[in-house]
Formats: sequence, C-alpha cells, structure tokens
Amino acid sequence: MNLPAYCALTERFTRFYRYQHLGAIVGWDQAAMMPPKGNTARGAALAELDVLMHQTLTDPSLPDLIARAADEALDAAQAANLREMRRDSEMANLLPARLIEAKSLASSRCEHAWRAQRPENDWPGFLANFTEVVKFAREEAQCLAQHRGLSGYEALMNKFEPGARSAEIDAIFGDVKTWLPGLLAKVREKQAGDTLLAAKGPFAIEQQRALGLELMTILGFDFSAGRLDLSTHPFCGGVPEDVRITTRYNEDDFMRSLMGIVHETGHARYEQNLPRNSVHLPVGRARSMGIHESQSLSFEMQIGRNPAFLELIAPLLKKHLGAQAAFEAKNLAALFTRVLPGFIRVDADELSYPAHIILRYEIERALIDGEIEAQHIPALWDEKMMSYLGLDTRGNYKDGCLQDIHWPGGSFGYFPSYTLGAMYAAQYFASIRQAQPDFETRMAAGDLSALFDWLNTRIWQQASHWETGELVQRATGETLNPQHLRRHLVQRYLGV
Amino acid sequence: MNLPAYCALTERFTRFYRYQHLGAIVGWDQAAMMPPKGNTARGAALAELDVLMHQTLTDPSLPDLIARAADEALDAAQAANLREMRRDSEMANLLPARLIEAKSLASSRCEHAWRAQRPENDWPGFLANFTEVVKFAREEAQCLAQHRGLSGYEALMNKFEPGARSAEIDAIFGDVKTWLPGLLAKVREKQAGDTLLAAKGPFAIEQQRALGLELMTILGFDFSAGRLDLSTHPFCGGVPEDVRITTRYNEDDFMRSLMGIVHETGHARYEQNLPRNSVHLPVGRARSMGIHESQSLSFEMQIGRNPAFLELIAPLLKKHLGAQAAFEAKNLAALFTRVLPGFIRVDADELSYPAHIILRYEIERALIDGEIEAQHIPALWDEKMMSYLGLDTRGNYKDGCLQDIHWPGGSFGYFPSYTLGAMYAAQYFASIRQAQPDFETRMAAGDLSALFDWLNTRIWQQASHWETGELVQRATGETLNPQHLRRHLVQRYLGV
Repeated sequence: MNLPAYCALTERFTRFYRYQHLGAIVGWDQAAMMPPKGNTARGAALAELDVLMHQTLTDPSLPDLIARAADEALDAAQAANLREMRRDSEMANLLPARLIEAKSLASSRCEHAWRAQRPENDWPGFLANFTEVVKFAREEAQCLAQHRGLSGYEALMNKFEPGARSAEIDAIFGDVKTWLPGLLAKVREKQAGDTLLAAKGPFAIEQQRALGLELMTILGFDFSAGRLDLSTHPFCGGVPEDVRITTRYNEDDFMRSLMGIVHETGHARYEQNLPRNSVHLPVGRARSMGIHESQSLSFEMQIGRNPAFLELIAPLLKKHLGAQAAFEAKNLAALFTRVLPGFIRVDADELSYPAHIILRYEIERALIDGEIEAQHIPALWDEKMMSYLGLDTRGNYKDGCLQDIHWPGGSFGYFPSYTLGAMYAAQYFASIRQAQPDFETRMAAGDLSALFDWLNTRIWQQASHWETGELVQRATGETLNPQHLRRHLVQRYLGV
Repeated sequence: MNLPAYCALTERFTRFYRYQHLGAIVGWDQAAMMPPKGNTARGAALAELDVLMHQTLTDPSLPDLIARAADEALDAAQAANLREMRRDSEMANLLPARLIEAKSLASSRCEHAWRAQRPENDWPGFLANFTEVVKFAREEAQCLAQHRGLSGYEALMNKFEPGARSAEIDAIFGDVKTWLPGLLAKVREKQAGDTLLAAKGPFAIEQQRALGLELMTILGFDFSAGRLDLSTHPFCGGVPEDVRITTRYNEDDFMRSLMGIVHETGHARYEQNLPRNSVHLPVGRARSMGIHESQSLSFEMQIGRNPAFLELIAPLLKKHLGAQAAFEAKNLAALFTRVLPGFIRVDADELSYPAHIILRYEIERALIDGEIEAQHIPALWDEKMMSYLGLDTRGNYKDGCLQDIHWPGGSFGYFPSYTLGAMYAAQYFASIRQAQPDFETRMAAGDLSALFDWLNTRIWQQASHWETGELVQRATGETLNPQHLRRHLVQRYLGV
C-alpha cells in the first residue's frame, strides 16, 4: 500500500512521541527524585520542551499532509489514527507558542512555591502566583474554544475528555446531587451501629512498601517495565514501555498508601497493555482521562474495596504488617468501606468522593469562564463543603482549596474525569458481573485473570481506536449510564 | 551595550543547554532507574534528542551570527563565550545528522547488550554489535578530522580534550612507560615486607551508604542540588544545578565504593561550583574532561588516599562500619596505597592506573585510525596486559577488553583524560603545598576550606573562560608538567 502522506505523518508523530518520552521521564524525576535547587533549571527545560512539542504539532506542512492522507486508502486503524492526529494538530494550532511557554513557566513556579505554601496555610502567598496561572489558563481556554462552539471551560475539559460537554456533565452531576446527600446520611446512620476494629500501628515504611510490591504483583504490574517510588503527590507517570507509579507512606495509616498503590496500578496496567504495535502513534494512546480513571477506580473501588479481594489479601497484611484482629477479612471490608466525610479528596471514602469532585467542578468552571476571580475561591469552597459534606473549612486553606496539585499546576478541566471514571468503572463491573457471575468467588481464590482479560480486550487493547462513547458502548453494550454507579453504591453500602 | 548577534546566539545556546538538561536527566535515569524493557523506547528518544541538539548547532543562521558577533564590542567573558560557541558550531557542522542518529542507536544497542554479554564473557556476541559502533565512530572521526590537520583519533580526543594532539600524548605516555615499570617493581618490593590488616566484612550496604553520605558532606557536596544513587557503572551525571552521582556496593569490600564516592564527589563539586551567571552558556561549562578528571582525582588520589585525610575519616569508618583494628589511620593509609596490579581499571591502585590507560589509548588509537580491526583487540589486550602489568588475561574477556563502558557506548578518545587528570591534580597539589605548607595538618583536623577555596577560585569558577593550557598556567604558574605526577608517586610510594 502506498500512503505517502500518511507515512510522513506517522514519522512526525513518532518524533512527537519521543519528545513526550523525554518530558514524561523528566517530569517523573521532578516529582520523585529532584532536589529542590534543581527546580528553576528543570522548569526552563520542560517549558522549552513544551514549545518544541507545540512546534512539532503546528508545523505548517501538517494540515496539508492530513488533508492528503484523508484521500489515501487507509484501513480502519489508520483512519482512527488520522482522526486523532487531526485533533492534535487542530488543538495545537489554536494555541500560540508564547502562551505555551508562559503557561508552562507560570505553572512550574506556582506549583513549586505551593509545595511550601500549602503546609504553611499561606493562601495570600499562593494567590500571588496563582492569579498568573489563572490568567494563562483563561487565555488558553479562549484560544481552544474559538470557532468550536464551546465555552472556555469546555475547551479545557476536552483536553482530558475529548467530546465532553458542560451541559452533559451538569446533568450527570445534577442527578448525583439529588441522591448523594440522602444516601450519605442513610449509610452513616447504618454504619453508626457497626463495631469495627481500627488497625494498630505504627506500620514500618519498609513493610508497607513490601506489601505494596506484592499487591502490585498480584494485580499484574510488570516490574521489568516499570517502578514504584515515592512522591509527595502520588501519580502514574512515565511511558507505556516504562511506567512509573508513586505513593507516599504514613506510619500511622497503612490504608491510604495501600489503596493509593492499587489505584495507580490500575492506571499502570492500562499503559503497560496499550497495543505495542501502535504505542508510538496517537491511535495507540489511552482514550481519555475519564477512561484512565475508570481503570484506576476499577482497581481501587471495584476490586480493591471488594470483600472478595480483601479476603484474598488479608493474609498478606498479616504477613507484612504483623497479625492483628483488625486484619480479619470481614473487618477489613468494614474498614475499607467506612464512610466518613473529611477534608481531603484523595483520602475520601468512595461515597463522599463525588461530592469533592462536584465542588471542584463547579468552582473551576466558574473561575475559567470568568464568573468568579481566584480570590473568591476560599469563600465558595467553605460554602460548598458545608453544603455537600457538612464540614467547616473556614481559614483552613491547606486542607481546603490548597490541597490539590491540579490548580497550581494549571490543570483545569481534569476533575470531572474522576467521577466519570467511577461511573465507567461501575458500568464495566455491572457488565462483568453478568458475563462472569462467579468473578468474586474466583477473585477471593486469587484468580483475577478473567477480570483482567475483560479489561485488556475491551479497554486496554482498544487504546484510542474508538471515540469514548463508542468504546464504552462496545465494551458494555451501552454508552455512559450513571445509574450503574448509584446502583453499585446502594448495593455495596446499604446492601440492597 | 547593543550586541544583537551575540544576544541572538546566547538565546540559541540557552535553548541548547535546556535540551542538554533533558538528555542528562534521562541519561542518568537510564543508568540508575530504568527497568530493562524501557531500553528500546529510551534509546529512540535519546537518539531523537541527539538529532535535535545537532540541528540546533547546525542551524544555517549560526555561522553568520557568529561572524557578526565577532565584530561586536564584546568583553572578555563574552569573547570567550563566542570562542566556545564557534567551536561547538564548527564541530557540529562537520557531522551529518544521519550519522548522529545512527551512531546513537548503534551505541545504545551495543551498550545495552554488553550489560548481559560482559558477565557471560561473550566476546563473539559483543563483537557483532561492536563492529557497527566502530564503523560509525570511524566515520565520525573522519568527519571531524577533515580540513583540520588532525588524525581521526585526534579529532575524537578533541571532543573531550580540545586542542590535545596525539604527538603530545605519545610523548607524555612514552615518558611514563620509561619509569613506571621500574617504580612499580620497587614499590612492590618495598611493600612486600609491610604487615597490614585487611578490614573484615561483611559491610552492610545501608552502612556503607551512610558512610558515603557523611563523606560527601565533609567534602562539601550540596545535597539540595544533587543526589547519590546506585548504578552498575558509577558516574557523575545530571546538570550543574542538580548533580547526580552514583556508586555500587560490595558487601565484602567497602574500599571501592568509598573511593568511588570520593572520586565522583570531585566531579560533582566542579559542576556544582561552575559560575551561576553563565552556567547556561558554553563559557560556563567545565573546561574539558581532562580538567574534570583532575577534580575527581584531586579528590580520590590527592585528598582521599592522603594519610591526613584517612586520619580524619578513621573515626567515621568505626562509627558506620563498626570498630576494628584495620580502621586505625596508619593501617588505612597502608590499605589505600597498597599496590597490586589487577585486571580491572576502576579498581586499580594509583600506581598501576596509568598502565591501564596507556594500554587503552594505544588500542583505541590504532582501532580508530584503521591500523587494527575490532577482532584484533583481545590479542593486543593480552599482550599489553602481560607487558605492562605482568597479568595473563587470555580468554578472560569480561575482566579484559569487555570491562569498560566507554567502547560499547562509542566513547573513543576519552581514556587519556584520566591520566592527564592525574597529572593536573598532582600539579595543583604541588602548587597548593607551596602556598599552604600546613594543608595536611589542617586536613587531618577537618579543615578542608582553604583547599576547596584554591580549587574553587582557580578551576571551578574559571569554567571555560580560558583554553586548557592557560587555565592550568594561571592556576599553577606553568602549563602541564607531567613530572609532578612522577614526583608525587615517588614521594607517596617510596617516601623519597
């Protein structure tokens, strides 16, 4: 087959993939390895790389190659690849290079300062840098929205979730707001009478790490193509050929790190199992951040907090952390499904989590679309935390609006991906439950293979071949249906 | 001052510096962190970066900017910067981009395979990849030598040691060959009667690491701008703002790792103390690899094996590794100056070391200039090891010609830097001894500041302001004088 334009495009995008590789490894290093004095030079190097990658996607010859490739005799995979290339090219052409660099530098500066400002509860200090980040994010939003019939916020959200619309998210989150507070109240009432044993620490970090590594092995992580390290803010980074996940340990609490590792392992397996023959091309990438979070939450929520899984790993907790009554499977199930609204999103229980997301979505949407300014965030935060979770956050910036890395790092529009991910995950497992009614029995016995086969065949190996809606339709027989999450929560937390 | 061409050049070279930053961190990661399956993608990403950096230096507008900047009113530092920029640009323009990429990929492949082939003593397997590496290195040598009146090997040597000539190295090494064998024999005869206590292991790795970190602190390493990690082949990498040194540990032998750390700390301090205001420009770089090795060898040989320094650190050895008679200062001095020719260069004593270098220099020079082929290396190696050090290496490739990372990695012309470095270091300390006759007394008392001030003022802060000869002349009052090394060795090992 003679496809000159298409082949020229794959060459450009392969080069782009290699630049991404450099950024992914250097970015991981910045979070997991870099000493503090390296930050200014690192920020400059990464901004330079951002500009280079932007230049690669805005090369003047690209639109013509894309137009010519569309007339070549492409097969289905090639056509899907071209669709993704066109999206990348169009998005990049909406952004001027000077904005890319200015935004990268401002975010790098703000995020770096935030690491010290957060523990000091220093909102005014943060605000000074953050105003700059918001300015560039709005400018980016305006650029990306132009001629596309999108609001600025929608345009940012589409970087992570191609095709997502605010009206749709509003409807989904609006529905959640109708039933979540009532469900939370009912579950808290039901759990009030439960007796459960707290696990007694301290839990030595080396032992938590050994436990984490064994769990990753059970969950299929390939250690010859990835690593587990430490960082203040856990994440999954690196490249599909070399996936880097991180965690943090607390000697008084093994549960957070354990669930954190299970969560990141979900991201990691998606990356490690993207199809090898197209991993360097846009069609071989993970579909979207919502689908990515659906993998981490399949692992953390659907598998990790499942009583059958906790039955499987109870002996490992005893082995690594020492035997204690709290590590009996039934008690573990109670511990890992304990509902207790708190300040911190990443430590939230499964049921409060959507409330954290909805709060952030509402604030960042108003901020990007100019309805509020950065200085209004704390008051809105206080109001919504009280309204959604009954918590008083006044004056407590560090456990409030300063808690997440997303905003200081300039990532607006990402948060909805978490709850979309939880919804997709619940939908997958409803489908799996039908196809494999005994999957929990097998899980408790240590056989997760059928489960992973389902995810591998229907999600991981599909990469970006389909748009999100079609991917989910093909995997589960229907497009996104948020009722599966509601049903899952009611079933798990009320037992009905 | 209005310097449009000069300013345009500093912009280009600042960008080049940032690309170097990406390569340095990703290269460190490849050696210290990367899991094995990451290698192919990593090799491709680094080759892409090599091509990009080459493009940056061969941009068609550069020669004209350099010519125009030469007519601008530059001060001395700017003129030195321009001289270095011109050298970079001229060197880069001699090499075609396709060769850069082909050489990078071939070296990456050869080095990666070598990691497994060396322990298996697999010379034929190695030769298959290595022939390719030699082919590209010769091509590079030919390209770099053209119109410059250099031999191919000289052209490669000039990448590491600008201005070095084979005739000069031949003369220096030829002189060493006249006195080294006799000195070796005398010292071995003298030491044959010594009684010395070997230190008894095992030495736990965690304790060796703690000792290493404390030594680095004493030697002035800035941990807020650098790290110590593990790699199979110790090196100093990273960037001046964030220096990464590595070591390896052997539970039976604490001495190698300890001296390895002292050696790499010498490299690290040079990098960490390059002048901050020009660190992103060619004039702000380390002068040459010979000068770099003069820092590592000032630390390892002039300081590290000095009885006064061993007196200072003897209590630390007892503290970290447990008290034993072998850790008395006098015995340590005997241990660290024990002369015993062996197969491995990096483990060689100070006196045998130059023989290892001369052997490699003679072989790689003949190889690059086409006098021998790759398959002739083992026989030559055997012959020279027998002749220079009296050792039989026949059939033992893994401790013979397969031992170094330089050749599989395509670095020909580097080896002379080690012995030039040892000579410069001996020359510095002859000068320091005159200016600070009590420096050893102060060293034994823990005061190394005057010593570091000398190096900082005369070498580190000078960066690439002067050509090598002038740098050394200004620092010590004379250009390279190899007799200082001879005098140092005779004084230290024969006490005369």
